Amino acid sequence: MKAEIIAVGTELLLGQIANTNAQIISRALQEIGIDVYFHTCVGDNRERLLDVLEAGFKRSDIIILTGGLGPTKDDLTKETVASYLKLPLQLDEHSLNQIKSYFAKRGRPYTENNYKQALVPEGALAIENKKGTAPGILLNKDGKTIIMLPGPPREMEPMLKDVVIPYLSKMCNSTIFSRVMKFYGIGESALEEKLEDLISKQTNPTIAPLAKRGEVTIRLTAKAENRMAAEKIIKPVEEEITKRVGNFLYGFDDDTVEEMVARLLAKLNKTIAVAESCTGGLMAHKLTNIPGISKFFERGIVSYSNNSKEVLLKVKHDTIKKFGAVSEETAKEMAEGIRISAGTDIGVSITGIAGPDGGTPLKPVGLVYIGYSDSNKCCVEKHIFSGGRTDIKEQSVNSAFHLVRKMLQSMGD
Amino acid sequence: MKAEIIAVGTELLLGQIANTNAQIISRALQEIGIDVYFHTCVGDNRERLLDVLEAGFKRSDIIILTGGLGPTKDDLTKETVASYLKLPLQLDEHSLNQIKSYFAKRGRPYTENNYKQALVPEGALAIENKKGTAPGILLNKDGKTIIMLPGPPREMEPMLKDVVIPYLSKMCNSTIFSRVMKFYGIGESALEEKLEDLISKQTNPTIAPLAKRGEVTIRLTAKAENRMAAEKIIKPVEEEITKRVGNFLYGFDDDTVEEMVARLLAKLNKTIAVAESCTGGLMAHKLTNIPGISKFFERGIVSYSNNSKEVLLKVKHDTIKKFGAVSEETAKEMAEGIRISAGTDIGVSITGIAGPDGGTPLKPVGLVYIGYSDSNKCCVEKHIFSGGRTDIKEQSVNSAFHLVRKMLQSMGD
Repeated sequence: MKAEIIAVGTELLLGQIANTNAQIISRALQEIGIDVYFHTCVGDNRERLLDVLEAGFKRSDIIILTGGLGPTKDDLTKETVASYLKLPLQLDEHSLNQIKSYFAKRGRPYTENNYKQALVPEGALAIENKKGTAPGILLNKDGKTIIMLPGPPREMEPMLKDVVIPYLSKMCNSTIFSRVMKFYGIGESALEEKLEDLISKQTNPTIAPLAKRGEVTIRLTAKAENRMAAEKIIKPVEEEITKRVGNFLYGFDDDTVEEMVARLLAKLNKTIAVAESCTGGLMAHKLTNIPGISKFFERGIVSYSNNSKEVLLKVKHDTIKKFGAVSEETAKEMAEGIRISAGTDIGVSITGIAGPDGGTPLKPVGLVYIGYSDSNKCCVEKHIFSGGRTDIKEQSVNSAFHLVRKMLQSMGD
Repeated sequence: MKAEIIAVGTELLLGQIANTNAQIISRALQEIGIDVYFHTCVGDNRERLLDVLEAGFKRSDIIILTGGLGPTKDDLTKETVASYLKLPLQLDEHSLNQIKSYFAKRGRPYTENNYKQALVPEGALAIENKKGTAPGILLNKDGKTIIMLPGPPREMEPMLKDVVIPYLSKMCNSTIFSRVMKFYGIGESALEEKLEDLISKQTNPTIAPLAKRGEVTIRLTAKAENRMAAEKIIKPVEEEITKRVGNFLYGFDDDTVEEMVARLLAKLNKTIAVAESCTGGLMAHKLTNIPGISKFFERGIVSYSNNSKEVLLKVKHDTIKKFGAVSEETAKEMAEGIRISAGTDIGVSITGIAGPDGGTPLKPVGLVYIGYSDSNKCCVEKHIFSGGRTDIKEQSVNSAFHLVRKMLQSMGD
């Protein structure tokens, strides 16, 4: 099965946005064993889209289009594909009702522009859009499968995951199954070195390291007749990798470190409070993304100034005067301060220099102290991160979560 | 002048990376008035690359390829293009010396694989690679301009900026200039309806609406001999749009609402503190992404529990008991409470139900109250947002920034 992806939208060709949909869809197709041979971006232009469709139909079995399903005159994907396939567009009542109720729920007026979004080529299936107005389209004609999805990723992705991928995977004979192992505290080349023989001898499963900011993942991908057989192929390789580098292994697949922290807090019945300076609320934000966290997290402080550290966290004035706001001593007092004032089991603090300004030779941009305090111990980690302001904030919060994870895991032992 | 961009690399089609080069190059070309009509990604495969080249040569004047210039067997862009154009590859001594010295500088061995990187099609110009080994190629044949650049962005971008763009801008008579108008508080279809006649009659400039989360943008694109002339063409259309829907207009081009709030705070010399419940620190995080914000923002509170609202913000126990944590009354007291305790000019509060749990028929998921308090007034906005937990948090913070923006703008009047 050969697939190609066509993204429709002049904003792509003007360089206003990148075609991230093609990456997301390609990954998903690869996981079910469908090869993608071409990505194309074309503008909101009927003639050029027809040319691209013509090429696509000649060379591919599955054509997935994104974009151009909106209510405006620029949006012409559906009309152009229907025209190319010589199919009339017909009203899909269910889609029209969904569009109308989308607007009613938001107390906004439905306009006539939106009507065309409820039109569907004859014989096609409308795919419900849970995050917007335009339904997706799934259509088979002349031995080809044509799928049209909205451009905005938050509308496209649920349709891809819930409808398109299950539909397409039934068309395929073999299964590809991946397992991702997540490592923290070891660099990509060091990890690769420890697994060098496994990586060079790999066949099925394949072993692919990928370095991300602050962590490395290993993706094991097996091809087999079904998922159970694929998992059986992966298991011994996963076990061998765990044997060699398991002390750096912290999670699998979609695990995020903050979700793991939340699970550990629940398991050990521990409460936590966070005091952030340079990360400005990012750690609290990530914690509060997790449903049910209110049982274990009830407050955070963003103490962005020296004064607020003293007033809200009882950091000693002399400590800041002597060691500075960005210091091991201040991080320690912030962590203890938030724990005691909040009455929680655990207090975490982050104080550092996110940049681009504020660095000195002694205390450069990227210097961050992360404090941890519970009733038994208090410790501070020192880091020097690199990158821009948001990079440094993200890495700081990531490292803070990993510190808490390790502390909670050692409690459980 | 019509251009297209071809990215060569199987990793793109596997979805391992996104084609960010196409976005970077498209933006740069747009700034010098060259229209890009197609982006294509194709794998490390000679036949498929030849097909894509053939299509490109038929329809475009300028073809820019990225990727496939490396030393391995997979790298075949140069050979394939030379073969298509029936041009022999010849050794470029200067490039060979540069490659050898690249390795020498790093104390690494030069390998025979790298020799092929110094080969250049007859008649072509080699573009020096300051960050890697593969030189780029610039070539004119049969009235077409063909440019081949390395895949890695850090190698590609200097070549684009230093050699390719200056070279191409000499070829162009005209400039394309875009201005993006940003609207909040009106949906895409309603906005389009108010501008329907302008949109249907458009020629130069073109008028393109684009819907993003929580806002709509209108992109005005004019083609003219130079930037000043393009701006003159855009001005009357921008003014007419402002006349009709200016009350929803909040910014231009790359403006974000939080940056606008920061600029207004600086302009009016006002300080701000934020008290967040359901948004858990996201507003403070976004504020603290802005360099220099510490002059106007020195603390935030994440009062995730009823108790912390009372203790940290002095919200009255009876208020929460009578009206609930998610209420206009609580939002009001939170906003006033943070303003007074922080001693700032402005206090902002957000309290709501981010979901997925916690909703009731009277207070559904997505119900969010945003409070604003300064020394003259206190007001609360009520919203019902939709989407998942993070969607609701993002929309709440976005709306809170817009409320502050409007309040600050009315102060300036």
